[in-house]
Amino acid sequence: MAWSLGRICKGVQRLGSLSSIQSQLSHPSTSGSVRTMLGLPSSCFSKPRDFSLPNSSWGSEMMRLYKHYNSQCEVEMEGGEKQEGPWRRLPSYNRVLKYATGGVYLNKIIQSKARLFTRNNRDPGVAFEYVLFFNSEEQKCVGIFQAGHLLEGPPGHVHGGAIATMIDTVTGALAIILSGPVVTANLNINYRRPIPLGSTVLLESSLDRKEGKKTFITSKVTSSDGSKLHTDTTALFVSISFSHLLLGS
Amino acid sequence: MAWSLGRICKGVQRLGSLSSIQSQLSHPSTSGSVRTMLGLPSSCFSKPRDFSLPNSSWGSEMMRLYKHYNSQCEVEMEGGEKQEGPWRRLPSYNRVLKYATGGVYLNKIIQSKARLFTRNNRDPGVAFEYVLFFNSEEQKCVGIFQAGHLLEGPPGHVHGGAIATMIDTVTGALAIILSGPVVTANLNINYRRPIPLGSTVLLESSLDRKEGKKTFITSKVTSSDGSKLHTDTTALFVSISFSHLLLGS
Repeated sequence: MAWSLGRICKGVQRLGSLSSIQSQLSHPSTSGSVRTMLGLPSSCFSKPRDFSLPNSSWGSEMMRLYKHYNSQCEVEMEGGEKQEGPWRRLPSYNRVLKYATGGVYLNKIIQSKARLFTRNNRDPGVAFEYVLFFNSEEQKCVGIFQAGHLLEGPPGHVHGGAIATMIDTVTGALAIILSGPVVTANLNINYRRPIPLGSTVLLESSLDRKEGKKTFITSKVTSSDGSKLHTDTTALFVSISFSHLLLGS
Repeated sequence: MAWSLGRICKGVQRLGSLSSIQSQLSHPSTSGSVRTMLGLPSSCFSKPRDFSLPNSSWGSEMMRLYKHYNSQCEVEMEGGEKQEGPWRRLPSYNRVLKYATGGVYLNKIIQSKARLFTRNNRDPGVAFEYVLFFNSEEQKCVGIFQAGHLLEGPPGHVHGGAIATMIDTVTGALAIILSGPVVTANLNINYRRPIPLGSTVLLESSLDRKEGKKTFITSKVTSSDGSKLHTDTTALFVSISFSHLLLGS
């Protein structure tokens, strides 16, 4: 839940089959955990910072995995022509324009300062550093996550809530891309092994199945080389109508 | 997971039946999601800031609930004598001394800057404002949580990962107080209704049962008046040996 496709709308502009969602505009409903969508033209953003691009804090593992997936976003054909590859990087911003009635307990000035939880610190490397990639054919989303020192739980290790936050982010991204407006109904996380602060891990989420309005996603977090399993998760998202999003009814 | 009793060790100093844990000292294990404990004398902390005390950002609902539970920490008997009440406030700090081998991917300077995820911003009111109370007789822990504007998910509402973080914090506090050193094995969260940014909610966690090394906790998040259910959760914690904590084996 709690994840906004508006923040990656530039990313989905390139996803042909999903282009219809660009015209959609939403705000949170009053029930359920809402994934919102904004179809604002990119010009509305007046060049916001794209947090999914590399910065100086990214370590070698983060960069290695980033390059691995990013190199598959565009492939060179015979003759030198370039073509879209199987993966798409999903840009990431730290706020959306507000059309929502939420945040009613905040005054207007503070509302304007609201920031996406995972992108609320502009200092590189101190908290969540991550980038998401989507594979349409495989119906998968991966996240590469480098955990900064402000995410501590047990000394020297990442807080379980921070891990849950990343899982929510990656599974939610996949659910909304595949199913449109959804709310998260359930996150069921098995914690297998702690994640050392400063390390880079890989989050993989896959579509399990769709049943009517329900989208089931599975996810796991592993070490960057895939050898260690940190968590495995099942997530359930439920589609909601566009009027539900717009009217909060 | 990812929660350190060291940060509330002053709180448990007053809990007679739990005094033995004060002498324990721990660090994260290399497997599982670790809840750590530090039994350092309070003088070691050299007056750290206790984040569980009211500050200027706390709204009327936060203060009302705080006073409700805090007033039951000490009760006045006939004759004016004061006696411990059923509830205890659990102080909360933003870091622990490091005895861990974790954070191996961070250099020493950055390790020293590590902060508890839920207390990593010193500006009052911008992120997590919360206080925990424990009731020994009822084997319950409650958390009062005011969500700041840096915790945004859907516009105007709290990120699902931030909600999971609070649930982890409250259920983990109860598990470690009741069972000593534990690791979180599972968090299963049903999201029922989004939480508006800036609002205050109540987190209640109760012991469900203990089976051998397993401690089962249930939890729910409601609006401050209890009328709206935001989430319900089951959590499983598994006890680990003290040597497991110390040696990471």
